[in-house]
Amino acid sequence: MKIREATREEFDQIWPIFREIAAAGETYAYARDTTKEQALEIWMDTPRKTYVFEEDGEILGTYYIKTNQSGPGDHVCNCGYMVSSSARGRGLATAMCEHSQHIGRELGYKAMQFNFVASTNEGAVRLWSKLGFATVGRLPKAFHHPSEGYVDAFVMYKWLET
Amino acid sequence: MKIREATREEFDQIWPIFREIAAAGETYAYARDTTKEQALEIWMDTPRKTYVFEEDGEILGTYYIKTNQSGPGDHVCNCGYMVSSSARGRGLATAMCEHSQHIGRELGYKAMQFNFVASTNEGAVRLWSKLGFATVGRLPKAFHHPSEGYVDAFVMYKWLET
Repeated sequence: MKIREATREEFDQIWPIFREIAAAGETYAYARDTTKEQALEIWMDTPRKTYVFEEDGEILGTYYIKTNQSGPGDHVCNCGYMVSSSARGRGLATAMCEHSQHIGRELGYKAMQFNFVASTNEGAVRLWSKLGFATVGRLPKAFHHPSEGYVDAFVMYKWLET
Repeated sequence: MKIREATREEFDQIWPIFREIAAAGETYAYARDTTKEQALEIWMDTPRKTYVFEEDGEILGTYYIKTNQSGPGDHVCNCGYMVSSSARGRGLATAMCEHSQHIGRELGYKAMQFNFVASTNEGAVRLWSKLGFATVGRLPKAFHHPSEGYVDAFVMYKWLET
């Protein structure tokens, strides 16, 4: 297995992962009916770089890295991670998050921020905390969960410089 | 004086206000050398609506309103306000912020969020607090101030429903 930069042509293999996660509406701030074309722009074109987690020629996970704010905020990056439902619980998110911090430092970023972590996504909150991210904000009822209703979202943040 | 929706053609009058504020680099997450073309996209094209504060045919202030996050976050809007240096201290920011909350409700938003308020921008923090915004997050050293260095930025938030 390896984590490597994705090519735009590989989006066909990324799309099923994106579609499933967006359609569930439980974790990401993407419309549940996001089209493949929109997803391509969101995941491949807008970010600075996009990576895939590959095993035996199959793409099981993916993440993007981008600048979170321009100008006076451009030393902070933002990432999003997605793991195929068939590959959950095997440490892919941890591997990709650690990889992304390495890439973030390499690209010159000083910190990484997650803007919108659903408070109901307890696994993610626990994982990011374990990987050194502090919960620096709590947005009241900012996330509309399909079954839980309006729930809080967290802002999580980690200084990358060592 | 009145606050009304801006036309795209009026950006020529908005641009000097934008340029001055972006070039100072003290308050907004825009590159200090943002071009007029980029500013047009940021201020007029990307937002859902853009308004101007007009007095005697002159544009003295402006604000935009847009959806802050897609999908499960699309009930929260985001606004940005700019006041010409010649018109500061006269309550324009207050008037525009109150106007924007009214518009936000009209457009169906349930809350308003400011993502990136420089902690050094004490006047703004005080004003938004007075207008009912809670400081719900503090991003450590996320704002690179031209003279103060890396300073914290606040996330501020207000539920709009009454």
